[in-house]
Parts: sequence; C-alpha cells; structure tokens
Amino acid sequence: MEAAGSRVHLDNGGRAVLHPLARQAVLQALDDGWADPRRLHAEGRRAARLIDGAREAVAAVLGARTEEVRFTPGHTAALHRAVVAGAAGRRRAGDRIVVGATERAAVLHAAELAGEPVKVPVDVLGRVDAEAFAEAVAGSGVALAALQHANGEVGTVQPVERAHEAARAAGVPLLVDAGASLGHVVVPGTWDLLAADPADWGGPSGVGVLAARQRVRLAATGPEDPEPWAPGGVSVPLAFAAAVALQAVRADLDEAAARRRSLVDRIRAAVADVPDVEVVGDPDGRLPHVVTFSFLYVDGEALVTELDREGFAVGSGSACTASTLEPSHVLAAMGVLTHGNVRIALDRTTTPDDVGRFLAVLPGAVSRVRERLGVHGL
Amino acid sequence: MEAAGSRVHLDNGGRAVLHPLARQAVLQALDDGWADPRRLHAEGRRAARLIDGAREAVAAVLGARTEEVRFTPGHTAALHRAVVAGAAGRRRAGDRIVVGATERAAVLHAAELAGEPVKVPVDVLGRVDAEAFAEAVAGSGVALAALQHANGEVGTVQPVERAHEAARAAGVPLLVDAGASLGHVVVPGTWDLLAADPADWGGPSGVGVLAARQRVRLAATGPEDPEPWAPGGVSVPLAFAAAVALQAVRADLDEAAARRRSLVDRIRAAVADVPDVEVVGDPDGRLPHVVTFSFLYVDGEALVTELDREGFAVGSGSACTASTLEPSHVLAAMGVLTHGNVRIALDRTTTPDDVGRFLAVLPGAVSRVRERLGVHGL
Repeated sequence: MEAAGSRVHLDNGGRAVLHPLARQAVLQALDDGWADPRRLHAEGRRAARLIDGAREAVAAVLGARTEEVRFTPGHTAALHRAVVAGAAGRRRAGDRIVVGATERAAVLHAAELAGEPVKVPVDVLGRVDAEAFAEAVAGSGVALAALQHANGEVGTVQPVERAHEAARAAGVPLLVDAGASLGHVVVPGTWDLLAADPADWGGPSGVGVLAARQRVRLAATGPEDPEPWAPGGVSVPLAFAAAVALQAVRADLDEAAARRRSLVDRIRAAVADVPDVEVVGDPDGRLPHVVTFSFLYVDGEALVTELDREGFAVGSGSACTASTLEPSHVLAAMGVLTHGNVRIALDRTTTPDDVGRFLAVLPGAVSRVRERLGVHGL
Repeated sequence: MEAAGSRVHLDNGGRAVLHPLARQAVLQALDDGWADPRRLHAEGRRAARLIDGAREAVAAVLGARTEEVRFTPGHTAALHRAVVAGAAGRRRAGDRIVVGATERAAVLHAAELAGEPVKVPVDVLGRVDAEAFAEAVAGSGVALAALQHANGEVGTVQPVERAHEAARAAGVPLLVDAGASLGHVVVPGTWDLLAADPADWGGPSGVGVLAARQRVRLAATGPEDPEPWAPGGVSVPLAFAAAVALQAVRADLDEAAARRRSLVDRIRAAVADVPDVEVVGDPDGRLPHVVTFSFLYVDGEALVTELDREGFAVGSGSACTASTLEPSHVLAAMGVLTHGNVRIALDRTTTPDDVGRFLAVLPGAVSRVRERLGVHGL
C-alpha cells in the first residue's frame, strides 16, 4: 500500500522532515557533547561550550542576547514555563492573563492555572483584533499577555507589533509564540518573552526554545532549581542540532518562503475547485508554507487515512492526533467548519511535482470518502 | 594540558559514556522515527512503533507491562511527575509523603509542594532504617512513600523490598527511584511507581523512564493533557536509544557488575592509604561501580580540577556542578564530611589500567591541592 520511495510528506507543521545538517549535528554532538554541561571537567566544559554556542546562534537569529535564550525539553514546556513564570513574576500587578483565542493549548492551559484568562476573539480568518487586544492588555490587574506570531494550524499571522506596542504602553510583558513561524519567516523583535519550536524548522523534536528579555522577571514557580525551565537539563545534541538547523534555514529564508508561498497559492486555487470545500485562514497575511481546508460531508481522519494510502502524509488541524480526537479549538474560535479538515505544511524540500501529484489525487480521495459515508452526487 | 587520547572518564554516574549501540540507535531512529508518533499517517505510525517497541523492551527488563512504562523528558521529570501525580491520586488518604533523607532533590522538592515531607533518616553508611521507614509509612494520612533503590552519590543500596512490604501493608504506593541502579544491578519488582535514568546506563540524556503499576492511580495535576508525563511528547530517537542501551547492558549485567565491583574494591583499599581520608558509603550493600571518598583539608572542586588537568574526569557528589555549589544534602544527611568530596563512577568500559593510572596520580593531586591551601605536613 505504501510505496516507500514515492511518499510525499506534507505534514511538516510542528514536525518537519529533519534537516540533513541537523542529523549531522546530532551525531557530532553525541560524540563531543554527551557529558553533563554542568560538570567542571573537560568533558563537561566541552558540552557546555556546545550548548552555549547553540544559545548564541539562536540568539543571533532572534536579535537577542545569548543569556536571554534557554533551551527547554520542548515547545510545549517553553510555553508553559513562559506563562507560569512570567505571570508569577508580575504577581504584584495582578493575575489576569490576556491571550488570543487561537493560542496553543499549552498557553491556554497554563493561563487557566491563574484563573480564567481574558480571551481576545479572532475573526473568521483567524486574526485577533489588534484594538481589542490593546484594550484587554490595558485593563486592570493584567500580569501577562500572550499572542502567537502565526497560527500553525491555519497559517494566519497575528499583529504582534501592534500588540507589543499596546503591551509596552501598559507595562505588561508580551509572550510571542513563534512556534509556527521561526525558521519560515522573519520574527519581529517585538516580544518580551518568546517561545519557539525547533521541530517545526527541521531541527529535532525533544527540545524547545524559551527567550526572555533581561528586563523580564521570571519568578521561581517551585522549590529552588538552578534551571527551572529545564529541570535536569536538556539534551545537548538536540539543542545543538536545533541551532544548526535554524542557521541553515535562516540562510535562504526568503527564497524558501517565496518558493513555498507560490506552491501554497497553487494549492489554494486548485482546492477551491473541489465541491463543498472551505479554504481556511488569511489568504494574504499568512505563513508561506501552511494551508488548511475543510470539506463538507467528510471526516478529517478518514481523509487523512485515504490520502495516506495514496502515499501522501497530511495533517488535520490539532484534531489529527491519535490521542486527541476533539475538534480543533482554533477552527472553533474562527467559527469555521471543524470537521473534514486537512492541513498541508510544505517542507523546504517539497517540489512542484509533489504538489502536482497531490492535487491530482485529492479530489478522488474526497469523493471516495464521501461515497463511503453515503454522500452521493453532491 | 588535556591529552585527549589518554583521558580517563570516571564520572559516569547519571551521565555515562554513550553506549555505541545507543549512538547507532539514535541514528536509525532519526531516519525512521522523526515523525510525530501521535499522527495517523504512515510516518507517524512508524514512529509510534519505535516508541512502543522501546516501552516494551524497558518493560521486559523491569518485569512490567508495556502499558505501565512511559518515557518522560528526563529522570528529574519522571521523579517529579511520580511524586506529584502519585500523591494527588491519593488525596483522599491524606497528603503526607514519606521519603528517605537521601532521595534526589527532585523527589524532595516535589514532596515539599504537598507540605513538609516525613524524612526517614539514614545511618552513617547512608542506609535508611527499614523499621523507621515502615513505621513512618504506617502513620496516618500518608499518600505516598519514596525510596531510592540505591544512592547515586555514595552507592549505598536501600532496603526497598522491606519498604515495599511495609507500604503494601499500609496500602501506600511506593515510588522506587532506580535512577542510579537500573542497568547496573537487577532492580527488584517491589515497586508501585518507578523512575529510571537512561543517561546513567549508557543511553542518551534528555529522556527518562516512569513506570506505574496499573493499580496505581496517577491523578491529573493540571488541565487536561493526553500525555501529562511528557507534555508535547518526548524524542523518539532518544527513547529508542535508551531502550537499546538498556537491552545491551542487561545482556551481561552480572559480568559487568563483578568486574566493576572488584575495581571499586581496589580503589577503596588504595584510597584508604591516603592520609586523612574518609571512604563514604556502605562497603558491602552498594552499587558495583560507585565509590565516594572525602579528603580533609581539601576543596572538592579544586581536586576535581586538579585531577582533570591530569587527564581524569571525576565527580564530586551533588556539589560538583557549575550551578549548584552547595554542599551535598546526601553527605550532610549521613553526617559525614561534605567537603573535599570525590565520586568515582566506573563505566562498563573502564579498565584495570585506567584505575591503576588514577590511583597512581591521586595521592599527588591531593597533596598539591593541600599544599596550595597551605596545609603542610599532615
């Protein structure tokens, strides 16, 4: 069923195909950086140099200082820590947390630990109203605000510059979740806290990035730990590989973005011709490589499985995991179809031929799933 | 200063030299298991098979069921989760947590979140009194008990079988921290919760093991998460490599233990001849590969640095990290010297020649450090 050689992987959001240089970097650092970087001997110091170099490289891409960048066990952990410790560090100001309605579950969950967060709604394209966000941030007792740079499910880019302006005016730190954007587009420096996801840019999974401007106070959230953002430390090889991959994708960011943007345009146009489909997300202010659509009368999982059989790996919003079968809260917040959803996230290596073959197969796959569900002649 | 070819690494506790098969396994799984195991397509299912196989392999070594074994971002995370969720799952019984005095900081800290834990003291060899532990567990309102199988700093093995007997009689779940023992000695099946550390047995760091018998209730400790023990998931390559390394070291566990035990006996005997030294830990009921000693009139860090210059990497209890410069709480609980401490943890590959060279260099290194501190003629 699965002709291994001809597989096309179009589910690169949050977990892209590993960049070849990242693979090489893991290997190198398994040899040079296996020791504990907190130890004082030569092996420990060598591991510490690798991780410090990795922090420096990520910081350079972010426009931050090396000491402002830390590695965590993953993107989820970085978001959680940023919200919890960022809010705790501002306990005196209050305990309200302002979030966009389509933030990652980790942000929403961490914010709920401090009480009911103030959720700023998004429009049908998935974009928060910058005015409403500014107003919420200026409210009383706000400890922290969080807004993603771009939504990984639907690709919509958020007005983080304006949100940061408003947050600065109100003296509220802004957490920008760059988990779906760093490595694909330039991330503006308008953040106080930032989280990013190496697995999304072709680095390994199992490591995340948390950056905090030196002016931001991150409170201890439990008993003393020298590295509360990564208790016990992170994998040096994974952190090193994350930085190597980021440097590599940064080198031709614009070309890769332009190439993928035009492939996505082609997909958007072709998919709109399939009967009873809704293409989701902002057609212009969006990530270059992500496109999401929802089909009426189709079960998202069934379509993922059908396409998989044909040799194409696609995602299905946040709903498409074996463990979470709930409808996507992102699509729900946008007020669009939450079922029959398919997400395409193109890799840097995705070719026009890959896309052409996918588009040739898609309408038939949709029809077959609809037929199986007894939906005929629509 | 550092003749790279001739380095001898004797600081393998908690971070052993990577097993060659683990390195190979990381590579293989970077190629086969880079995808998200929660996704439904072929790439995701392949990653899921790798991680399920890894769980099965670890479970077989532990004498557990596959579904009882989970991977976490590290040993520290496993301990934290076991204590917090294990105690929360027994909220009805009470909120007291019984711990050995020399448990890892992660256990002590997690236990403190629920209030002041009941600490069962250890004797001068680092061993808890089994009677006192049993008595504490039988007390009222005890939610959970935690005892390490062996202490990684001093090597002393704890009476976990008797502790488990007492815990069972009291209906209290026992967490056994096998972080310093699994992969080196047979870990008895007398546990309800178990944490272990792949980096300690030659697997990679950045992944941990948490096992929980099916009868144990682990309560949710925050908002819903399908995998609360590893939010966002763990690295499949690291988990796979951890399991491969465990299988490999398990294959000749007894031979490797006997070989290292005799090398440690040799070190214990030779070190006792250095003036003003205290060899720490149980001489008999101990891990086969760990030996700790403390020198009067010596600063532990200075000695680590001096030995490093001579080409030998050693540890220095929990105190020897660049970030935590506090005296070891383990040594303090045992009532022994907390300064001038050196820990040797032999790798499976450590040779008699390595040990001979170390023992030839040690007395001179101690003398030089003492001289520098102005301690003459002692």
